[in-house]
Amino acid sequence: MSKKVVIGFSGGLDTSYCVKYFTDELNYEVHSIIVNTGGFSKQELKDIEKHAKALGVKTHTTVDAIKSYYDTIIKFLIYGNVLKNNTYPLSVSAERLSQALHIAEHVKKLKADAVAHGSTGAGNDQVRFDMIFHIMIPGIEIITPIRDMQLSRQQEIDYLKSKGVKMNFEKSAYSINKGLWGTSVGGKETLSSNGMIPEKAWPTQLTNNKPQQVKLHFEKGELLGINKKKFAHPVEAIQYLQTLAGPYAIGRDIHVGDTIIGIKGRVGFEAAAPIVIIKAHHALEKHVLTKWQLNLKNQLSEFYGNWLHEGQVLDPVMRDVEAFLISSQQQVTGDVFVELMPYRYQVTGIESPYDLMSAKFGKYGEMNTGWSGNDVRGFSKIFGNQTAIYHSVKNSADGQKN
Amino acid sequence: MSKKVVIGFSGGLDTSYCVKYFTDELNYEVHSIIVNTGGFSKQELKDIEKHAKALGVKTHTTVDAIKSYYDTIIKFLIYGNVLKNNTYPLSVSAERLSQALHIAEHVKKLKADAVAHGSTGAGNDQVRFDMIFHIMIPGIEIITPIRDMQLSRQQEIDYLKSKGVKMNFEKSAYSINKGLWGTSVGGKETLSSNGMIPEKAWPTQLTNNKPQQVKLHFEKGELLGINKKKFAHPVEAIQYLQTLAGPYAIGRDIHVGDTIIGIKGRVGFEAAAPIVIIKAHHALEKHVLTKWQLNLKNQLSEFYGNWLHEGQVLDPVMRDVEAFLISSQQQVTGDVFVELMPYRYQVTGIESPYDLMSAKFGKYGEMNTGWSGNDVRGFSKIFGNQTAIYHSVKNSADGQKN
Amino acid sequence: MSKKVVIGFSGGLDTSYCVKYFTDELNYEVHSIIVNTGGFSKQELKDIEKHAKALGVKTHTTVDAIKSYYDTIIKFLIYGNVLKNNTYPLSVSAERLSQALHIAEHVKKLKADAVAHGSTGAGNDQVRFDMIFHIMIPGIEIITPIRDMQLSRQQEIDYLKSKGVKMNFEKSAYSINKGLWGTSVGGKETLSSNGMIPEKAWPTQLTNNKPQQVKLHFEKGELLGINKKKFAHPVEAIQYLQTLAGPYAIGRDIHVGDTIIGIKGRVGFEAAAPIVIIKAHHALEKHVLTKWQLNLKNQLSEFYGNWLHEGQVLDPVMRDVEAFLISSQQQVTGDVFVELMPYRYQVTGIESPYDLMSAKFGKYGEMNTGWSGNDVRGFSKIFGNQTAIYHSVKNSADGQKN
Amino acid sequence: MSKKVVIGFSGGLDTSYCVKYFTDELNYEVHSIIVNTGGFSKQELKDIEKHAKALGVKTHTTVDAIKSYYDTIIKFLIYGNVLKNNTYPLSVSAERLSQALHIAEHVKKLKADAVAHGSTGAGNDQVRFDMIFHIMIPGIEIITPIRDMQLSRQQEIDYLKSKGVKMNFEKSAYSINKGLWGTSVGGKETLSSNGMIPEKAWPTQLTNNKPQQVKLHFEKGELLGINKKKFAHPVEAIQYLQTLAGPYAIGRDIHVGDTIIGIKGRVGFEAAAPIVIIKAHHALEKHVLTKWQLNLKNQLSEFYGNWLHEGQVLDPVMRDVEAFLISSQQQVTGDVFVELMPYRYQVTGIESPYDLMSAKFGKYGEMNTGWSGNDVRGFSKIFGNQTAIYHSVKNSADGQKN
Repeated sequence: MSKKVVIGFSGGLDTSYCVKYFTDELNYEVHSIIVNTGGFSKQELKDIEKHAKALGVKTHTTVDAIKSYYDTIIKFLIYGNVLKNNTYPLSVSAERLSQALHIAEHVKKLKADAVAHGSTGAGNDQVRFDMIFHIMIPGIEIITPIRDMQLSRQQEIDYLKSKGVKMNFEKSAYSINKGLWGTSVGGKETLSSNGMIPEKAWPTQLTNNKPQQVKLHFEKGELLGINKKKFAHPVEAIQYLQTLAGPYAIGRDIHVGDTIIGIKGRVGFEAAAPIVIIKAHHALEKHVLTKWQLNLKNQLSEFYGNWLHEGQVLDPVMRDVEAFLISSQQQVTGDVFVELMPYRYQVTGIESPYDLMSAKFGKYGEMNTGWSGNDVRGFSKIFGNQTAIYHSVKNSADGQKN
Repeated sequence: MSKKVVIGFSGGLDTSYCVKYFTDELNYEVHSIIVNTGGFSKQELKDIEKHAKALGVKTHTTVDAIKSYYDTIIKFLIYGNVLKNNTYPLSVSAERLSQALHIAEHVKKLKADAVAHGSTGAGNDQVRFDMIFHIMIPGIEIITPIRDMQLSRQQEIDYLKSKGVKMNFEKSAYSINKGLWGTSVGGKETLSSNGMIPEKAWPTQLTNNKPQQVKLHFEKGELLGINKKKFAHPVEAIQYLQTLAGPYAIGRDIHVGDTIIGIKGRVGFEAAAPIVIIKAHHALEKHVLTKWQLNLKNQLSEFYGNWLHEGQVLDPVMRDVEAFLISSQQQVTGDVFVELMPYRYQVTGIESPYDLMSAKFGKYGEMNTGWSGNDVRGFSKIFGNQTAIYHSVKNSADGQKN
Repeated sequence: MSKKVVIGFSGGLDTSYCVKYFTDELNYEVHSIIVNTGGFSKQELKDIEKHAKALGVKTHTTVDAIKSYYDTIIKFLIYGNVLKNNTYPLSVSAERLSQALHIAEHVKKLKADAVAHGSTGAGNDQVRFDMIFHIMIPGIEIITPIRDMQLSRQQEIDYLKSKGVKMNFEKSAYSINKGLWGTSVGGKETLSSNGMIPEKAWPTQLTNNKPQQVKLHFEKGELLGINKKKFAHPVEAIQYLQTLAGPYAIGRDIHVGDTIIGIKGRVGFEAAAPIVIIKAHHALEKHVLTKWQLNLKNQLSEFYGNWLHEGQVLDPVMRDVEAFLISSQQQVTGDVFVELMPYRYQVTGIESPYDLMSAKFGKYGEMNTGWSGNDVRGFSKIFGNQTAIYHSVKNSADGQKN
Repeated sequence: MSKKVVIGFSGGLDTSYCVKYFTDELNYEVHSIIVNTGGFSKQELKDIEKHAKALGVKTHTTVDAIKSYYDTIIKFLIYGNVLKNNTYPLSVSAERLSQALHIAEHVKKLKADAVAHGSTGAGNDQVRFDMIFHIMIPGIEIITPIRDMQLSRQQEIDYLKSKGVKMNFEKSAYSINKGLWGTSVGGKETLSSNGMIPEKAWPTQLTNNKPQQVKLHFEKGELLGINKKKFAHPVEAIQYLQTLAGPYAIGRDIHVGDTIIGIKGRVGFEAAAPIVIIKAHHALEKHVLTKWQLNLKNQLSEFYGNWLHEGQVLDPVMRDVEAFLISSQQQVTGDVFVELMPYRYQVTGIESPYDLMSAKFGKYGEMNTGWSGNDVRGFSKIFGNQTAIYHSVKNSADGQKN
């Protein structure tokens, strides 16, 4: 009896090669799976399934993972205002983890003997897939022909053609990876340290030049309303905001970062909705959280984003940070006003019952007058006391030496 | 003999009132001082001196503090990419400390009996001045009539008019504070949580619509060249960049922050050169620093910015952080390419001999091929080892319970 | 009608003076309250009540706060292994906050007009009481005669004697403050930077010289068993451990710390049970938590302890840190073995179903052999990759300069 | 011509096997090197050299690295009060890095073709050696027969005997690793999670029962005097203190920690001088550093210790942290008084011209009276202001909901 292998399948050249190679050369029973985290239309998913079957898979499975992806990962990236290196919403990083987790579940369900991924040996994804598989399905063989055999593109094409496979073998100038939390764009400009993705290469083009105001409504840190619309699940709000903000070509940038394997990498991305949501959410937090909530949240979120990026989503410390983040969001409720403009946006204000700046009700007004200039005079004296003692002691000690 | 008081003097209504009140009512010998941290033209400084003398000061002193301001404070804000709450370059906060330090020096030099500042009781500046004075000139009386007497604007005007003082008594709709590191803009929109400074109220208007590329040259973290120009001191480079970037109306935003006295505050600012410099500097660092250099620098810089904002520039821990920052800048040398556009800018790349992403010379190329897919396979296994053990142990223990 | 004041009453000279002064001089209706956080016996509480009534209070209330003190504060100090400056279990700091919170509740309940505390102007307690009262019962007058009137001990005694008050007026050589979480000891040796509390001055003397082994059983971070005994509430376990460990004179030390008001302070303490519990709990955690759980927990706990020490227990960030800590304790279950000896103890090992070091069951054994020397070889290469690139790039760049 | 290999040689079974194997089976020209970081006597070093030559090495080199070890690593562990997991002075971890660096230098000097180490595949040392070699001598082959061939002890003995090698083949019950910064002790008790090294197994036995006071003199953080003795280099002071404190059997404990490869490990250690020095140094710092110096130092030092433990001494971030630490030590000068007793010690006080607690001179006395109860009253109000606003806003908002 053939051994069973589960393969994460995108329909591209590499994973098409793998499927054919597994069935025809290694005599595996191949089960392909595609985990949709927001990047595929229904038609695309259908086409991919058809292609998988044509390649000879025993079964093909499509997982609609958009909501679970949000619930387990994206939600916390919003709570934490996570932008890696202060720029990148971790679009691809987060997606891969969600995909790896679903694939591992599938392996368990099918009691497969092996699992395969099509990552190359140069990037982050291989580590993410490897690690999640080691942790979730220990002992299951991990097969990675693309990494191990180091075939050229042409070798793969030749092989597939020799097997009579029909698909689009053209290479596009830019490699695009699309998902709920943004779209990455790699091309010749991102291979070196200098150069910007050209205007035409961006998947979403500027098509709206007329500025508009939007009101984003957050409840306990989650986006649940836009203008007058309410949404049953934040994923719908994110997708709707993308339809509003995308046409302004907002949220484009280039991310320079440290890969898990120690080299530096550069990638373009566009992420209109993610960027606007994070900045709006952060603006609201500045009004409703205390100074130290903002400070500690920031430190923990930076760790969270980095550790997630490095594939460590299953380290229990992530659950601990999430507990902190959930607790911090209890009063992050209110409206944020944002102006969308060509290539940019501006958060113009917030409104919240928990606004610590608000002066609209009595008690706060009373407190506002609850201190005097004299209180601050006392405060300043005490607040600088230790540094004053330090300088006095130092001057005296240094003086004695001379 | 009259007692001597030194007063930080801006020429505005409050400090004009103070001078007159000190001379005429309290019978002080008044010595006014203005510390220029980049906000005043020569003509303005001359006019202020004239006004001080007309009010009856015994001496008036103008300190050109721009370079010392850069050398002791701004330099480290650049090294640290400091933007408070991820937004605000600390324009005013940093300036006040530089001013307070110079005023304290002046008090020592004149052996004055008292020192005065015109801050109100609602903001940060009072704490900054009070504290620096307590630390640098302990025992010297600190006089703060504006805070203590809580006079209305009209009361001050009436008093000054009764004394025959002639000056511009009109109140402008927006209060503007200009310096090397940015200009703050306060108005009715910033008094509440919702509302944006209107286009016309910004001191620097959009006057250049034609995008341009600039090349910023950093040496050990300091901006010393722009395009083909070299500068003897970074202050000159900053001022030159401001002439290039300002006309694009770049670097406008609204900062929401925690004041030292615990209330939330909101203020508009424009800071074209500071924002472009910080983002360009950060981009260069992403290429030349290691992952943990970026990480620890970021944590320390956030502390540094907050503690500076709170007036604690004399705490010796600030020297320790500065030592870290200086050490971290040894390879932050290279060119950064930035495109300036109306209302926005884009860092498009960098070039540096210390670029860890660079592949232009042999050795790095060799190392690039210095690891195999198999090495990463081993890495992934070990890198996820503890989390794998954790889940295995947990499953086993939880299983035994059931 | 007289105004009502609630006073935190310990029965000592200062608060006795306050009661008498409030009733006889200020014509207040005085309501005394004592909040027992573990330092008083039933007889002592009875005597204090009698004394309060003799002084003329309208009502006297005794609050048994030991369990609520544990549930709201001590529990988290254990979760966090909190030792301030790596030494002091925050015995007194934590207690004061619990007391202030109960007093504020009492003020609300009685609808009192004022609240009083007997703290002096030199220490931390004044800030803790003031702040909790400002936050919990804003607008209620805070009366602090000891701080404000700066009376000498003799003046207070003379006044009380003149009023016919009979109590023990002798001053003891060491000021002792006892509670569930330790006993502080201040005396002439702690007033300067050099000097140790003498053997005889320690409240608990060495009376057991025979080493013994104890087994501490933790469940989700809480001490719930000792040897063969089980306890319904951790407070009982703490008190029982104190009876075992106290006679060994364990847990004595001197704490040097920063007061909230900026000066340095020094105080002796003995805390046998707290120190043994924290070290045993930490030992267990080293076995059951992942590296990054230990790391982040440590950072957050240091913040938590410091901020608690500074009286900020009501800052919502404390709730967020507590959420993290609770999450982190889910597997902190097991036995810790400790040897108690004169003046010292030794944690000798642990046993836990969640022990990540455990090798007793199959799966972990398999994993132990789940990696090869070759995997580690690959790991080392990749783990040092960035630093290797750094040195290669630097050597090359520095070489080109020469 | 034979290829050259440099091997770190301790004279034990594993490295003896390697030498013989390299010369006789692989036909290498073997150059052995031993780097003494404080664990070997002159006689031992002589014996090791003799043994190496008997095994057939071409050259044998002995490096006296004690001072360079201190200057590049130990100094910073003292500055940072580094105790891993709050327990372990990193005795072995630090040593290995120093050894690896010297071995790499030797490889460069001899222009060797390969480098070898005798580490097994289960521990930290293999990663440390591998990484340092990858970084310092990239491209040089790393040979690790013990890790790769997984020979049993008996197989190695049989091989060596077959080659006529004469050496002590007995296995001691405890594996001991001695160096300047402590001695590790591994045995059957440390292989499981429960069990203490027995009294007799400790290399240094209790031989002094009579308590004594010692005075440690630090200059800018370095130990340069003990009692009346002055030392030219801190290494001499450390070694002298070891002769005083060792006979009290001070500084024994068991460390539980995370290895670099993700598993938990447990090891006994004795480190009388290191522990006393770190605790004394820390006590001095509590008196002379400001609150935030202590806080940030602590955070950075924890990172430094962990990263060093993981072999990353060559990451440039370590230089940045060292710059911080050096800056922080400028006033860490003074005497620390410590009582040495059987199995324990007590820091009893300090004396320093930079003591922020000191009240011996005028200025500080004045400042001590430089604030009033009223100042603290104002301070408390402002210090709790944000939390008070938070609770007021929250009560109001939550009230409106109901």
